[in-house]
Amino acid sequence: MAGERGISATSVPEGGETARDAKVPRTERGRRTLRAILDAAAAEFGEKGFHEGSISGITRRAGVALGSFYTYFDSKDAVFRALVRDMSDQVREHVGPALRGARDQIDAERAALLAFIRFARTHKEIYRIVDEAEFVDPASFRHHYASTADRIAARLRAAAERGEVRDDVSEIHAWAIMGMNVFLGLRYSVWDEGTPPEAIADAVAQLLARGIGAATSSRADP
Amino acid sequence: MAGERGISATSVPEGGETARDAKVPRTERGRRTLRAILDAAAAEFGEKGFHEGSISGITRRAGVALGSFYTYFDSKDAVFRALVRDMSDQVREHVGPALRGARDQIDAERAALLAFIRFARTHKEIYRIVDEAEFVDPASFRHHYASTADRIAARLRAAAERGEVRDDVSEIHAWAIMGMNVFLGLRYSVWDEGTPPEAIADAVAQLLARGIGAATSSRADP
Repeated sequence: MAGERGISATSVPEGGETARDAKVPRTERGRRTLRAILDAAAAEFGEKGFHEGSISGITRRAGVALGSFYTYFDSKDAVFRALVRDMSDQVREHVGPALRGARDQIDAERAALLAFIRFARTHKEIYRIVDEAEFVDPASFRHHYASTADRIAARLRAAAERGEVRDDVSEIHAWAIMGMNVFLGLRYSVWDEGTPPEAIADAVAQLLARGIGAATSSRADP
Repeated sequence: MAGERGISATSVPEGGETARDAKVPRTERGRRTLRAILDAAAAEFGEKGFHEGSISGITRRAGVALGSFYTYFDSKDAVFRALVRDMSDQVREHVGPALRGARDQIDAERAALLAFIRFARTHKEIYRIVDEAEFVDPASFRHHYASTADRIAARLRAAAERGEVRDDVSEIHAWAIMGMNVFLGLRYSVWDEGTPPEAIADAVAQLLARGIGAATSSRADP
């Protein structure tokens, strides 16, 4: 079992309602320290991986004392778990505003992919960290993708109610869209940045406009 | 770097032209032994992961002597590398016949996804093994996905020449299709088998028929 080699899968609630592993800072200075530790953890685990990464490597990168680390986290496991959650939050915070400015759901999915490709170009370590969670912390891995797919499915359903996408959109479409986005980010953000993000987003938006868009569907299936 | 923790990325040619890590058996009996070792390696690494998995665990599962293992492989690294390649080959061999029986490219992509979903339900360990290659053997990880995307792109281009899909299909569509298939397999084969594979393949085939199919495009973009 994956859990044997890292953080026990049962130590994090599957639903992810709680599981905030970091203690919550009460001051602005505390918030800055916690942010510095999480950013340093992203660099440390992104470069060295979970097993080779260390708490002392994190505090050195963050420029904080070991005591400050233990103010917020009990262990390397705890900071890794918090980091996976933080990366999920960062993607959501980055993609959210793009979604809200869109004129319809196809435009929103285009904007979401565009924002994600750009985010992944400046945060390539997200792939390594989330992917390593499959082995180190399976519950966080599962929660990351399950909650992302749930969000996509919810916005597709809402769009279907508004008549912007076909009525038969389902969880299958949500997972298909998430899978496209993850692999396009791997190919065009992590591996090679030579293709303009707009070209990628346009190709996918066209595919979706015809594939699940309401207007196209009525023309294509009279 | 990922390579520090496992097999050096430079030890496998990136193009994957050669890199057959197993010595080639010359007898039918030898081929059966090699097959038994690879199947046992899939079970061993799928259950325990690369670091906890062992050569003695593999030979025990395969019911072969340690000497037989070393007839074909020099090390645990070598058998893991061969296993990733073997898993790629198995997917290709499983999906290939489905592709060849299809009436057009959209039907072919549907058949490919259907075959993959079924394959992944009986070979769930493929996810863990390929995903762990990202950390243990990055060159094999990259080769697996790059060669899969290349094959999809080539068949889309051929289909465009036959007029079965739109002229503007590109590598971006190939990565989008691969990403969909990988994540649909994770969700509906590895995590939960409750959804009929046909329902998944039909939803994606409809998306692709309208999204990149030639007939739909001429109606949707007059």
